[in-house]
Amino acid sequence: MPLVIAKEISDARSLCESARPGGKRVAFVPTMGALHEGHLRLVDAARESGGFVAVSIFVNPIQFGPGEDFDRYPRDLDGDASKLRARGVDLVFAPLASAMFPDEARTKVSVSEITQGLCGAFRKGHFDGVATIVTKLFNIIGPCAAVFGRKDYQQLQVVKRLVADLDMPVEVVGVPTVREADGLALSSRNAYLSVEERQRGLSISRGLSSAHALFRSGERSSRALRLAVSELVEKNADGVDYITVADPDSLTECPLSDDVGARALIAVAARFGRTRLIDNTVLGEDAPPIGFGEGR
Amino acid sequence: MPLVIAKEISDARSLCESARPGGKRVAFVPTMGALHEGHLRLVDAARESGGFVAVSIFVNPIQFGPGEDFDRYPRDLDGDASKLRARGVDLVFAPLASAMFPDEARTKVSVSEITQGLCGAFRKGHFDGVATIVTKLFNIIGPCAAVFGRKDYQQLQVVKRLVADLDMPVEVVGVPTVREADGLALSSRNAYLSVEERQRGLSISRGLSSAHALFRSGERSSRALRLAVSELVEKNADGVDYITVADPDSLTECPLSDDVGARALIAVAARFGRTRLIDNTVLGEDAPPIGFGEGR
Repeated sequence: MPLVIAKEISDARSLCESARPGGKRVAFVPTMGALHEGHLRLVDAARESGGFVAVSIFVNPIQFGPGEDFDRYPRDLDGDASKLRARGVDLVFAPLASAMFPDEARTKVSVSEITQGLCGAFRKGHFDGVATIVTKLFNIIGPCAAVFGRKDYQQLQVVKRLVADLDMPVEVVGVPTVREADGLALSSRNAYLSVEERQRGLSISRGLSSAHALFRSGERSSRALRLAVSELVEKNADGVDYITVADPDSLTECPLSDDVGARALIAVAARFGRTRLIDNTVLGEDAPPIGFGEGR
Repeated sequence: MPLVIAKEISDARSLCESARPGGKRVAFVPTMGALHEGHLRLVDAARESGGFVAVSIFVNPIQFGPGEDFDRYPRDLDGDASKLRARGVDLVFAPLASAMFPDEARTKVSVSEITQGLCGAFRKGHFDGVATIVTKLFNIIGPCAAVFGRKDYQQLQVVKRLVADLDMPVEVVGVPTVREADGLALSSRNAYLSVEERQRGLSISRGLSSAHALFRSGERSSRALRLAVSELVEKNADGVDYITVADPDSLTECPLSDDVGARALIAVAARFGRTRLIDNTVLGEDAPPIGFGEGR
């Protein structure tokens, strides 16, 4: 079936509805476009989990704060469509902001607590914007399954909470972060980086890999595990929003004086030039970003 | 088909899902139980608009504020089920509060602006509770149409805003208020009234009828139309929360110094003993609560 690009909400809705009666499951990948291999792995996961694959491309204005990069966020609908066509996607939903957020709209979906730490502490209103757009997109597409990357780890947990709390009939699937050969997590924002900034940006994945090596050697001190990351990142970044050790499910911060359990999230947000990069790993669960021993 | 009573979310969901493939539309009436003829008219409207009729009975804790009547709100599941069975309902969904709001839930749906005046000004958080439970119930039941009474006029408008803003694939149907022969709007809370309080409570429907008579005679002054209601209600009530003239769509208050347009909402909330009654009418659209001339 050829790729269909729908700009209208009603078109996207009826295409997904007409896929369903044939017994086809609809699987959905919400994106902001500027697609890279990380997004395409989400598409692959969607194709495995369902028959009809819908991808949205929408740079959601309400999840950007004032002074953030909404205006310069990369946009390339034609290039994105080619990549998705090659990956067997059925529907691209690329609405206008004016259709998604008409002037008269007044409804907000918000998730508390799990949104307070990590990126939520630095991007006020960001997760309200995420929760609201995800709710709208799910109501338009009506998916059985929706696929999100684990690079936006907090976002994935927020969406899981949202779906459970509002009884949405959607299975939320998290897919491992895709990285360059040298460990850099793929991100649409990597396009902003100069060669020199990119080199310094590798400190994050190297730091996370060091923490894995320490954890594997038996280290459980929250402070020591965090230090493995911070000593590399703080030396290389132009600013650090957070380097946090937390429970991977509740996102509750693990005090530096405590030991971590069998699984521990380490999440990082740091700036390189004007570009803010995020990354994370779950010790005791994920593979390290780069092989053991390469971490330093 | 016999009436099924489902207490579990998963049972309600799968019963509604299994109704759909046969091409049946699911129509839904959310209630807090203690059903009266007003609710049953909603059921009748649901039966007209869809094949499979689901009714929820849930006294929603999060739409009651501190000091409100959550604990003493009337509950009668057996009586309600008999009435619904006689009216041809297919499914009653009567969940436990602990299933709808487990301890770990953290998600809220809120609608701004239209929720600020009228009952929203006196019942802080009430419409967040309404918007959240309606979103959850729609996600469980998956209705094509949902039916609400016009007695809770602001609630109906909030639900319409919510459904439009979040792109829910649900038609929202409003049904006229059902009244006793003497004009009293049916309400589960009427059961709280003493004979004497009930008599004084008639001042609301009489006042609204007077406003209709004035409007029909050509009066357009917001102040004069409001006065027709307030002079009766203020004399009879033990307290008045509001008597408001407003635009029937936006719920924006019409200043007393202005004239109203071709349609005007007059909405009232007042207390009789410990019981808070609400009522409303849309001049230029609704029939008067009681015949012309009886209003005084």
